[in-house]
Amino acid sequence: MLLKSEINQQPDVLHRLLLEGQLATERVVAAIREFNPVFACIAARGTSDHSAIYAQYLFGAALQMPVMLATPSLHTVYGRPPDFSKALVIGISQSGKAEDVRAVLNDAREQGALTLAITNYDDSALAQGAAYHLPLRAEEEFSVAATKTYTAQLTVIAMLATALAENEEMRSGLMNLPQLARETLVLTEGIAGWAGRYRTMDRLTVLGRGFNYATACEISLKVKELTYIASEGYSEADFRHGPIAVVQEGYSVILVAPQGKAFSAMRDIFDVVEEKAAETLVISNDDDLLGEATNTMRIPAAPEWLSPIIAVMPGQVFAMRQALARGYEVDKPRGLSKVTITE
Amino acid sequence: MLLKSEINQQPDVLHRLLLEGQLATERVVAAIREFNPVFACIAARGTSDHSAIYAQYLFGAALQMPVMLATPSLHTVYGRPPDFSKALVIGISQSGKAEDVRAVLNDAREQGALTLAITNYDDSALAQGAAYHLPLRAEEEFSVAATKTYTAQLTVIAMLATALAENEEMRSGLMNLPQLARETLVLTEGIAGWAGRYRTMDRLTVLGRGFNYATACEISLKVKELTYIASEGYSEADFRHGPIAVVQEGYSVILVAPQGKAFSAMRDIFDVVEEKAAETLVISNDDDLLGEATNTMRIPAAPEWLSPIIAVMPGQVFAMRQALARGYEVDKPRGLSKVTITE
Repeated sequence: MLLKSEINQQPDVLHRLLLEGQLATERVVAAIREFNPVFACIAARGTSDHSAIYAQYLFGAALQMPVMLATPSLHTVYGRPPDFSKALVIGISQSGKAEDVRAVLNDAREQGALTLAITNYDDSALAQGAAYHLPLRAEEEFSVAATKTYTAQLTVIAMLATALAENEEMRSGLMNLPQLARETLVLTEGIAGWAGRYRTMDRLTVLGRGFNYATACEISLKVKELTYIASEGYSEADFRHGPIAVVQEGYSVILVAPQGKAFSAMRDIFDVVEEKAAETLVISNDDDLLGEATNTMRIPAAPEWLSPIIAVMPGQVFAMRQALARGYEVDKPRGLSKVTITE
Repeated sequence: MLLKSEINQQPDVLHRLLLEGQLATERVVAAIREFNPVFACIAARGTSDHSAIYAQYLFGAALQMPVMLATPSLHTVYGRPPDFSKALVIGISQSGKAEDVRAVLNDAREQGALTLAITNYDDSALAQGAAYHLPLRAEEEFSVAATKTYTAQLTVIAMLATALAENEEMRSGLMNLPQLARETLVLTEGIAGWAGRYRTMDRLTVLGRGFNYATACEISLKVKELTYIASEGYSEADFRHGPIAVVQEGYSVILVAPQGKAFSAMRDIFDVVEEKAAETLVISNDDDLLGEATNTMRIPAAPEWLSPIIAVMPGQVFAMRQALARGYEVDKPRGLSKVTITE
């Protein structure tokens, strides 16, 4: 099973990235300092879009840099690119083949923006077309569902933010990441024992807040890609504005709730969801909360800003176990290809 | 039924807004010209967030202004607001009571940003806390599911973009809007005849592209709020990157596909969805496409940038008819309140 092997490669991929990616990161940091962008714009699709969401929160919290997500159709459908002349414009794509992401970067470069590609291939069109490239160094990813390239994307973003912030505490946190990832994967081994109980589940909501809003979106997409069920990821706050109406008895909700500043909001929504007699599956390192959940996916304690890189892992394993319990093909889900070209 | 009456008030609300809102719009336009923002940031939740998405596309296409959506938790959870000193920061909230939206505007105002509130109440906290306010003039909205305040929000945004662009063609298009809305509502009368066929549907995907990505999100939320089914809105491009895996025989897909530059992408995804033997419900003014759909919701021809204001209306009526066919309370769905305060 390629998917399982790629999930398990993650600690090594992160370790290699942290070792080998420092120099390239410093070069990009120097260019960003010189350019001094007023804001950043990130173009990405699918899983990579969740990396972009992580960057929105991390660049905001660590650098007070406003980050927007691109609207590629303004470039490819309407031919009316927004003015990015004062922006850092980043394209994220595992394959580097996303045509619409490339169109955003091309327009931005013509306008005089500083452009950066984050892909797994130095020779990809996206990497070649950008002023700078930060490679994922994740080796080839064969399964259609992205796992190691997602956590590698988050790590590239975390390295960039750390170097820009010149923050020693962040730097030492980052160096612990491979060890945290290793501990996380050991803790996911228990999931196989109970995941099968959810094999008839046909709807799932995944909730996160702040840094882990991205994690909720990514776990939801992983479950949807691998099991075809109606899975939705929400920020805890957006969920309260409408979607909460759907939750009722027997409904399953995954809560991504590591300790940190967003924890109390997640703790509150846990109580609301529990009251509706929903099944609660909690990803957390908080003993009290784990003690109240229907099923638990424990993660080790980590700085909140790094927690998305490990908190997604039990979600990846849960999605894979669901697919196995249903007898589905896990490496190549129906109707999907590894590279999707949209314009 | 309050919901039905509020849906039917929309042409009059838009008419009043276009007549009475011009002066206030011109004052805001003068302030924006003087401030000369590098980018805009919009804070909103729920339905209002879909108005923000519309503004992303319209301000981009008409003004080449980059528009980001705010990440309120950076303000309320992490206390680390991004630097908005060179930005136009807009808060959109029907009630004007959204605490997190107000927090974004407060931080932005302290940083020296130009702030604008768009709400239905002049005396709301959001309106009072912003440098400028553009009221929706929609009279009180009683049903929990927002309809007339949504199209009023889109219209305020359209008026602002038109005045900033100083574009006569846009201005005359805008003046036709109440008449187009009237024609649209007449055309929605047929929906009652067939909507009941979908009363056992438990999953729905709503697709749009470009300007009508916002429409897809809003119709999906309306259906979810009123019927509690697993309804999801996607951009046609994002849908191809993963979520498309879920579509199979008997699955229902609403395609928001008015004629315009995004039409060919919607035409393509229609064929993909049809091939999977899914039920296609098409909102369009294109005779050929309507001829191939399982069920049709015809709208009048309109300039593409204005089409979201009318294309959402058949979706509102479809959602209401679904709730009625299922015997649900339409004015006050379970588990929701008119005003949701999140921090």
